[in-house]
Amino acid sequence: MRGERTTGARRVLVLNGPNLGRLGSREPDVYGSTSYAGLVERCGALGAELGFAVEVRETNDEGEMIRWLHEAADGELPVVLNPGAFTHYSYGMRDAAAQRTAPLIEVHISNPHRREEFRHTSVVAEVATGTIAGFGIDSYLLALRALAAEPAG
Amino acid sequence: MRGERTTGARRVLVLNGPNLGRLGSREPDVYGSTSYAGLVERCGALGAELGFAVEVRETNDEGEMIRWLHEAADGELPVVLNPGAFTHYSYGMRDAAAQRTAPLIEVHISNPHRREEFRHTSVVAEVATGTIAGFGIDSYLLALRALAAEPAG
Amino acid sequence: MRGERTTGARRVLVLNGPNLGRLGSREPDVYGSTSYAGLVERCGALGAELGFAVEVRETNDEGEMIRWLHEAADGELPVVLNPGAFTHYSYGMRDAAAQRTAPLIEVHISNPHRREEFRHTSVVAEVATGTIAGFGIDSYLLALRALAAEPAG
Amino acid sequence: MRGERTTGARRVLVLNGPNLGRLGSREPDVYGSTSYAGLVERCGALGAELGFAVEVRETNDEGEMIRWLHEAADGELPVVLNPGAFTHYSYGMRDAAAQRTAPLIEVHISNPHRREEFRHTSVVAEVATGTIAGFGIDSYLLALRALAAEPAG
Amino acid sequence: MRGERTTGARRVLVLNGPNLGRLGSREPDVYGSTSYAGLVERCGALGAELGFAVEVRETNDEGEMIRWLHEAADGELPVVLNPGAFTHYSYGMRDAAAQRTAPLIEVHISNPHRREEFRHTSVVAEVATGTIAGFGIDSYLLALRALAAEPAG
Amino acid sequence: MRGERTTGARRVLVLNGPNLGRLGSREPDVYGSTSYAGLVERCGALGAELGFAVEVRETNDEGEMIRWLHEAADGELPVVLNPGAFTHYSYGMRDAAAQRTAPLIEVHISNPHRREEFRHTSVVAEVATGTIAGFGIDSYLLALRALAAEPAG
Amino acid sequence: MRGERTTGARRVLVLNGPNLGRLGSREPDVYGSTSYAGLVERCGALGAELGFAVEVRETNDEGEMIRWLHEAADGELPVVLNPGAFTHYSYGMRDAAAQRTAPLIEVHISNPHRREEFRHTSVVAEVATGTIAGFGIDSYLLALRALAAEPAG
Amino acid sequence: MRGERTTGARRVLVLNGPNLGRLGSREPDVYGSTSYAGLVERCGALGAELGFAVEVRETNDEGEMIRWLHEAADGELPVVLNPGAFTHYSYGMRDAAAQRTAPLIEVHISNPHRREEFRHTSVVAEVATGTIAGFGIDSYLLALRALAAEPAG
Amino acid sequence: MRGERTTGARRVLVLNGPNLGRLGSREPDVYGSTSYAGLVERCGALGAELGFAVEVRETNDEGEMIRWLHEAADGELPVVLNPGAFTHYSYGMRDAAAQRTAPLIEVHISNPHRREEFRHTSVVAEVATGTIAGFGIDSYLLALRALAAEPAG
Amino acid sequence: MRGERTTGARRVLVLNGPNLGRLGSREPDVYGSTSYAGLVERCGALGAELGFAVEVRETNDEGEMIRWLHEAADGELPVVLNPGAFTHYSYGMRDAAAQRTAPLIEVHISNPHRREEFRHTSVVAEVATGTIAGFGIDSYLLALRALAAEPAG
Amino acid sequence: MRGERTTGARRVLVLNGPNLGRLGSREPDVYGSTSYAGLVERCGALGAELGFAVEVRETNDEGEMIRWLHEAADGELPVVLNPGAFTHYSYGMRDAAAQRTAPLIEVHISNPHRREEFRHTSVVAEVATGTIAGFGIDSYLLALRALAAEPAG
Amino acid sequence: MRGERTTGARRVLVLNGPNLGRLGSREPDVYGSTSYAGLVERCGALGAELGFAVEVRETNDEGEMIRWLHEAADGELPVVLNPGAFTHYSYGMRDAAAQRTAPLIEVHISNPHRREEFRHTSVVAEVATGTIAGFGIDSYLLALRALAAEPAG
Repeated sequence: MRGERTTGARRVLVLNGPNLGRLGSREPDVYGSTSYAGLVERCGALGAELGFAVEVRETNDEGEMIRWLHEAADGELPVVLNPGAFTHYSYGMRDAAAQRTAPLIEVHISNPHRREEFRHTSVVAEVATGTIAGFGIDSYLLALRALAAEPAG
Repeated sequence: MRGERTTGARRVLVLNGPNLGRLGSREPDVYGSTSYAGLVERCGALGAELGFAVEVRETNDEGEMIRWLHEAADGELPVVLNPGAFTHYSYGMRDAAAQRTAPLIEVHISNPHRREEFRHTSVVAEVATGTIAGFGIDSYLLALRALAAEPAG
Repeated sequence: MRGERTTGARRVLVLNGPNLGRLGSREPDVYGSTSYAGLVERCGALGAELGFAVEVRETNDEGEMIRWLHEAADGELPVVLNPGAFTHYSYGMRDAAAQRTAPLIEVHISNPHRREEFRHTSVVAEVATGTIAGFGIDSYLLALRALAAEPAG
Repeated sequence: MRGERTTGARRVLVLNGPNLGRLGSREPDVYGSTSYAGLVERCGALGAELGFAVEVRETNDEGEMIRWLHEAADGELPVVLNPGAFTHYSYGMRDAAAQRTAPLIEVHISNPHRREEFRHTSVVAEVATGTIAGFGIDSYLLALRALAAEPAG
Repeated sequence: MRGERTTGARRVLVLNGPNLGRLGSREPDVYGSTSYAGLVERCGALGAELGFAVEVRETNDEGEMIRWLHEAADGELPVVLNPGAFTHYSYGMRDAAAQRTAPLIEVHISNPHRREEFRHTSVVAEVATGTIAGFGIDSYLLALRALAAEPAG
Repeated sequence: MRGERTTGARRVLVLNGPNLGRLGSREPDVYGSTSYAGLVERCGALGAELGFAVEVRETNDEGEMIRWLHEAADGELPVVLNPGAFTHYSYGMRDAAAQRTAPLIEVHISNPHRREEFRHTSVVAEVATGTIAGFGIDSYLLALRALAAEPAG
Repeated sequence: MRGERTTGARRVLVLNGPNLGRLGSREPDVYGSTSYAGLVERCGALGAELGFAVEVRETNDEGEMIRWLHEAADGELPVVLNPGAFTHYSYGMRDAAAQRTAPLIEVHISNPHRREEFRHTSVVAEVATGTIAGFGIDSYLLALRALAAEPAG
Repeated sequence: MRGERTTGARRVLVLNGPNLGRLGSREPDVYGSTSYAGLVERCGALGAELGFAVEVRETNDEGEMIRWLHEAADGELPVVLNPGAFTHYSYGMRDAAAQRTAPLIEVHISNPHRREEFRHTSVVAEVATGTIAGFGIDSYLLALRALAAEPAG
Repeated sequence: MRGERTTGARRVLVLNGPNLGRLGSREPDVYGSTSYAGLVERCGALGAELGFAVEVRETNDEGEMIRWLHEAADGELPVVLNPGAFTHYSYGMRDAAAQRTAPLIEVHISNPHRREEFRHTSVVAEVATGTIAGFGIDSYLLALRALAAEPAG
Repeated sequence: MRGERTTGARRVLVLNGPNLGRLGSREPDVYGSTSYAGLVERCGALGAELGFAVEVRETNDEGEMIRWLHEAADGELPVVLNPGAFTHYSYGMRDAAAQRTAPLIEVHISNPHRREEFRHTSVVAEVATGTIAGFGIDSYLLALRALAAEPAG
Repeated sequence: MRGERTTGARRVLVLNGPNLGRLGSREPDVYGSTSYAGLVERCGALGAELGFAVEVRETNDEGEMIRWLHEAADGELPVVLNPGAFTHYSYGMRDAAAQRTAPLIEVHISNPHRREEFRHTSVVAEVATGTIAGFGIDSYLLALRALAAEPAG
Repeated sequence: MRGERTTGARRVLVLNGPNLGRLGSREPDVYGSTSYAGLVERCGALGAELGFAVEVRETNDEGEMIRWLHEAADGELPVVLNPGAFTHYSYGMRDAAAQRTAPLIEVHISNPHRREEFRHTSVVAEVATGTIAGFGIDSYLLALRALAAEPAG
């Protein structure tokens, strides 16, 4: 794709909402068997390949998520956001996500439309650049590829 | 009931959501006159009688509640959960509550169906073992008794 | 708990709605394997221990349920009520339940929020003292304990 | 009004649904202090004045109510019907009420629109000749007067 | 009934909303063949018999209806109100009707539940003393009788 | 079809809900002119032809219907059920119908989707083997044929 | 039944909507194991027995289905229609089905009320003579029998 | 207005929810160009003029907002509250706001009814003394004036 | 505030909808004890202080309200509008209010969110500059102050 | 078209609801630049060509609109009605419009489905002969042409 | 009107959706007695008079309708569209209709608001220039006249 | 990623619903300026790079789309599906998509949650492997990459 390597790697934030830090210890038939450590490693590896310095973070605190999104807005950093359960109600996160100029891609590990748990629509979708859902950990990797296709300068 | 005394008392977490730490200073006609300190004391007393080491906690922070539920899941600790206002929107708490293997009992001091305040249904109910509501502080005590009826080993 | 023994045992009605008399012959994965006879026996035993003369009844007839609730109202008898399918539509039962002065506790064997069958909310909940659901036959026993905590005179 | 006296008094059924037989023992601020016996007496007295042989009945059983409505249909008897809680769900009563040729007047003691209890509309209203609500026991008496205005022959 | 004759007749306002002045020229199968003049005459006659000085008015203007209801409130005059099409939306009329101390009876010529036209519920019902519907012009006459049963002094 | 004759005829219950016993005396343009007696006779005749001992019953009492469904469940008897007005609200009947192992076929004389009366969906449909509606009395006969196609021997 | 044999067999169209031609290759636990060829054969065989010349067709094209329904209307041919997925949205098919004079019977292989797939009601039901659902391939055969009971001349 | 100067200035809390600390860096066409620092300054200046010691705070953490509201309740401090995105879901904040005895005024910078973002109503409005919305930073200043009109002692 | 005195006072219309002219004679616990005359006086006094020539009007006629809003639009006059019951349905008033260029501030005496009467949202809010509600007569005075902060020329 | 000239021109009423008299001074991008005077002139000119004596009227008063519709009904005059904002709530206007025998054509200047303002459907549409919307002032002219196609005699 | 004759007639497509080709053979009380051939003839005749070369087409296939709309978009041809049953669900037709630059007028033979069949709103209305409904075949003719008023060049 | 080159390229179908063949001629601000030919070329190029033989097709006919999905199911071919307007109603397409064993990825050029046009949710999403939306033509390319990550054998 068109995302060339740049000498100084562009920072990308991969932000995870509540409970996602426990990936791998939870319902493997839904979320797959990859652990959170595996997620960090795979995002870092593909990011390096694409010329990104990827920082993967997770939090259970809405306020912390909001501050990270402010940090991304201030630094014009692209964001890959798996909002987890915040998907359904955190308008605070949504407003913070709406302020950015760089792309923000919403990802979900499972297909939200196939699992009963996701009975509410996403409050963040309408301010996201795009959405990728249903590919397990690969949802994150596809999001990084999508970012690579953006003009990175 | 069938919950015998065990030499080493089994740990039980009694977790309280926002504003519940102020019990006794708030709307006594709704919540009764027992203070939060009284709640801690009565839970501890009955717990001791039933062979439980009861830890009563309260928080106004969703993230902290989620971490306590992770702690309960990791330690396979039974939980008595009064989600307070989180009842109505905290899907983050709900997802954390869903991961456990030990029983989790949702309690409410007042009958949610009788008070206008509770106009939304509980997001945690569908992942709880059971629900006890409407008995004032006794809701907690009944929940401890219900736990005592579980095979404790 | 605070329910002392009284010389003359206090009468308590345990009233069951339609199909509950067939307990034990129906969907054991949902309702557990205890039979209706076992329910009667266990309620009687715990009632005796708590100083109650427990009368367990079941009916498929709404009119009979209403008359039993009138009887409870006239005798100021506490009631443990498992309304069964009446939960969803019997406003006649609800109005009869609303007239009492003694406590009335609604119980359900399974957690209504976890079973698809209970897609409608309870019409009786708003006039009940409290609700206990999800503990199998123990829901009844916890209700008797809750009654024992009431001032019995 | 136009309802003349006839030598042989015309039979009129005044049918009451669940809990109405307990009139006077229930929530006097809502239903007034007149007892059921008083209702029977006042209906009889006005009926006699208007040339009606009034039979006042009450039942908690939907099936019995249906049979009484069949009896009225077969005898072409006018009906004054206070469906009580059946108002909200008894389509069986509604279908039985729909078969008649003589007038059927739905009455309510209190104004259904002013009491929270009546949160559902009446299933019988659409097949009734008319509705009279909010006048206490006088609702029945006004219904008898309304019948008297019908050509009675 | 209990409404005795008084030497000085008590004033009663019979107020009609939009289009009701054309009674008799409109859809006779729905509204009966009685003309508006006939309505005035029959109300006057029965009013005289009951000791009322009945004033029948009609208006197509919401503001005028509101002013008449203010007049009734100031004079503590009982009101028989057929709101016509205002039934469905005039909260201005409703607020004016809510201020009175004397009884106000809502009447409808046809049974609102039987006619498709009345697809919205009445905004005035919740502040009315009672409702009488479905008896043609007799709805007004029954309302006057209902007023006569009020202590008139 | 595959339903062979058996030496000992298999019992089949044909159960009818409220008002259906009056078939023939009610709205012939909707329900056809066949009387209830005719229904019994035609079901019996076809049943005999198919090797069934058909028992046709009708009740206006929900409790009796529930007991008949218990009888069918205990005897593993196939059921043809016309729930009449119970279609719309009797969750008690629905729960009783859900317990069986033999087939249960829901029938309606008229096409529920063509008549305004049937404005609510059927609560029993989701637990029925299948549904046949719109063929007048033939709905019952088609249901018996459908049962005959079940392995009976 | 009353459908006598006629010398010249009456034509009957059995029309199937999208994906039904693949019967047997799709979700056998839902649709049974009979293939589309088996469906054609069984309909033909029973049709011959009942004196019908049955033509079984299937299409994935809404326009073709509409033209077939026009053909049926012009030839006054009875129709057995399994609309498949068109059930939920094809008002074009519905309007074409509404024009006929001969009977049209809607069939479904599975009970629509038991499968989550059928979350929308049928747009064709209100113009169908009747509906038969839940009997697998037998739904078609019962429909043919229902047609045989129609006066065929 | 009636709020006289007092020697010891009365403390007033001006509390801001998530993202409001970034005022001035976000969507100036919606929120105006005043920065958060400007907000603090203007509130302080008018507060001084009115005899208030105004403390302006902002937080992205729901738990911190709840604790500030507890502080206000304990100190009986008037509150000007811009809940930001918490407006739409934080029942925890709402319950904390409900406990106070001093006035609490909800403010919004833009008119919630004019912006698509505010598609949900405010959960805090029903427990607020009043609401002021649509005046930019002036919404806060008008709220301070409204407080000055309260009896301050 | 920034609204300086101008030699020629700027005209401001304070427009009141139905029943508001009766302020002081109606439900004082809801609307306070200030009479309409008091409202006129206080608005005039504060207006004079702020350099406004305030004209307070009230009407029960929707058409008159519309014409006043046209007058305000033609004269580019600021408006303080208490729509009263028109709040809930008068789209005619709303369209007239939408045409202006000068500010229009919607006021309510009580907090609409706290009173059951106001169960419908405001149709005028989306075209208003801002909303002030819940401060009794002070709502009007705060609105005048809000206008004073507008550039007045 | 078929509307021939008649010696005595047939009267046609063109009735406009609230705010329409201000046409040309309001939102020209929505309503076009034609003024109300231009509307009157163009309707008059085309009317003369078609043999109609067109009277164009506008009112902000619902009562006046109702009286004009009564006038049209009494004179059997065809009506072209642009209800303006009355479209959404004036059941009084709708009832008056329903009484006529001559045709009544509802017109709208803009396409109601394209403008957010028209979020409610028309209450008058179901009693109108037809609807023409979206052609600016030409909507009126097309309506006059549609009337000309009616047999005028 | 302003649509002058041009030497080379402008092409206009009149497109009809499913079942409209059978006009005249279907429900004459709803659609009038004009046949489809008559429709073609009358559109052609008026088109010629207005300087249009009118091509009337009908299809039961959504895909063909979409291709015709593409043809109209490519040729910048005005369209008169009677979508028939596609009105209610064909978003494919709607998207195709949205691409054009020339006017597109939606027509309906009957008044959609008066017939129960049209229970869903039109998906195409929001992208149409305007709508004409309720005038039988004249709806098409009025649409041609509306096109003639467009600048045709 | 893990999708290595295979000697024989694996066939992949890229299927496009109605109007998508006109890409590039339609609303470039929404769909970007890439033409359909460009889409075909870019998919082919990336497919070759990933070892896929990509066939890009488009249709306006639902039936053809269904047959293509049958072809994919029979050949176990992976599918990239942009359903276009079929997204909102084609349950026929959905059922055909549900039958496959190979992965099927739903793509959208624009973010459905950001455009008002997509007011209905996708009927195909619940049977898709995953969804990628909002990246313009890159949505297709990301879908091909997602397929490449599947075990291809």
